[in-house]
Amino acid sequence: MPEINRENEKMFAELTFEQKKQLYERASEFFSDNKRQLFDRLVQNRTRHISVVLENIYQSHNASAVLRSCDCFGVQDVHVVEDRNPFNPAGDVAVGSSKWVDYYKHADIEAAYEHLRQKGYRIVATLPHERDTMITELPIDQPTALVFGTELTGLSDKAIEKADAYVKIPMYGFTESFNISVCAALSLFYLTEKMRASNIHWQLSEEEQTTLKLYWSMQVIRDGEKVMKHLLEELL
Amino acid sequence: MPEINRENEKMFAELTFEQKKQLYERASEFFSDNKRQLFDRLVQNRTRHISVVLENIYQSHNASAVLRSCDCFGVQDVHVVEDRNPFNPAGDVAVGSSKWVDYYKHADIEAAYEHLRQKGYRIVATLPHERDTMITELPIDQPTALVFGTELTGLSDKAIEKADAYVKIPMYGFTESFNISVCAALSLFYLTEKMRASNIHWQLSEEEQTTLKLYWSMQVIRDGEKVMKHLLEELL
Repeated sequence: MPEINRENEKMFAELTFEQKKQLYERASEFFSDNKRQLFDRLVQNRTRHISVVLENIYQSHNASAVLRSCDCFGVQDVHVVEDRNPFNPAGDVAVGSSKWVDYYKHADIEAAYEHLRQKGYRIVATLPHERDTMITELPIDQPTALVFGTELTGLSDKAIEKADAYVKIPMYGFTESFNISVCAALSLFYLTEKMRASNIHWQLSEEEQTTLKLYWSMQVIRDGEKVMKHLLEELL
Repeated sequence: MPEINRENEKMFAELTFEQKKQLYERASEFFSDNKRQLFDRLVQNRTRHISVVLENIYQSHNASAVLRSCDCFGVQDVHVVEDRNPFNPAGDVAVGSSKWVDYYKHADIEAAYEHLRQKGYRIVATLPHERDTMITELPIDQPTALVFGTELTGLSDKAIEKADAYVKIPMYGFTESFNISVCAALSLFYLTEKMRASNIHWQLSEEEQTTLKLYWSMQVIRDGEKVMKHLLEELL
């Protein structure tokens, strides 16, 4: 199983949906109505229909910029493979966005792909120099995991071989490459806009939304985890 | 009149279209067939239907990254206002893209807008924090100049007041801002894709294409300007 950024991953695993809702009611007394409305608005726009895989991103400011784009476009899950580079997106570029998205660390690319395939994802590698499908033509009827590689060498052979499909961003100029963070922003913008304009059922389930709001709550409540554990004990 | 990056701006002004074509025929003997094919392919994708205005971009790597995006998406003209910051995109981030796009320097934002209005452009300011039209809903039937402001303070009051319309990129997350170069890349990608998929007459005229190829030629011929001047003398 991959490691997740939330140390308290299992915290709400035993609760029923009803109990989660009750818990969130109580937790939300610890923060403002403004925050509550913000959470309600943003959680509606979150998706796991499109996810991101980052393979050995060397520069942490690039990793952080990708997390920021994920947050901006409502992409909740980021899968990180760091068999060569330690992933540490807690830089200032992320502007705290690592608090709002979920990232999962995998031991290698095969483990990441296996995990995603079990969840029904189609794995799509982004290859700026290949003449494959334009991203504007990629069908997104199936849950889609977009794989981005390192700045230096692109994706590993394994990451390419084992992908289900390949896309590139249409480019028409002399300079035919983009920085990884621009490439990710362009891809995510295009695909999430397409997704939002479609009939695809892309939103989180109501229970997923409530669980996510519980995690978000802990980010805005002072001593959030401690308070949440206390409320949890009261409830059970 | 704005200053253009090509010092030899007027070099071909007196020529007829026929003469330009003859001159290009001769010039193209000085470079490879590969380059010639590349020019033919890329010039087909160039547009002046969408242009860019940069107001006082502080960081030259951001200015360079915007030029690079313009080149990648086929946007030929960049208008630069530098009443506070000298514009110097000749950094390595542009990967030489300043050789392939045209940029015009204007004394102030009013001069830039005036120049563009005379050429029939609608001036659209990008305002990340305003609740205006989403860029995905911007009509592009008219030639459109997109205005991007500085990293620190955004667009000046004048640049905002005197614009014809305002757009923002749809964002759904906690962090509601992008770096200027990402913002420009997202805007240009979206609008140029929309333009290419439309029936709009967005390409350069054949004469404009030939003129542009003459300028491109000088970038790839050794002592390009000298050689071109010699060929020009021979022709006239």
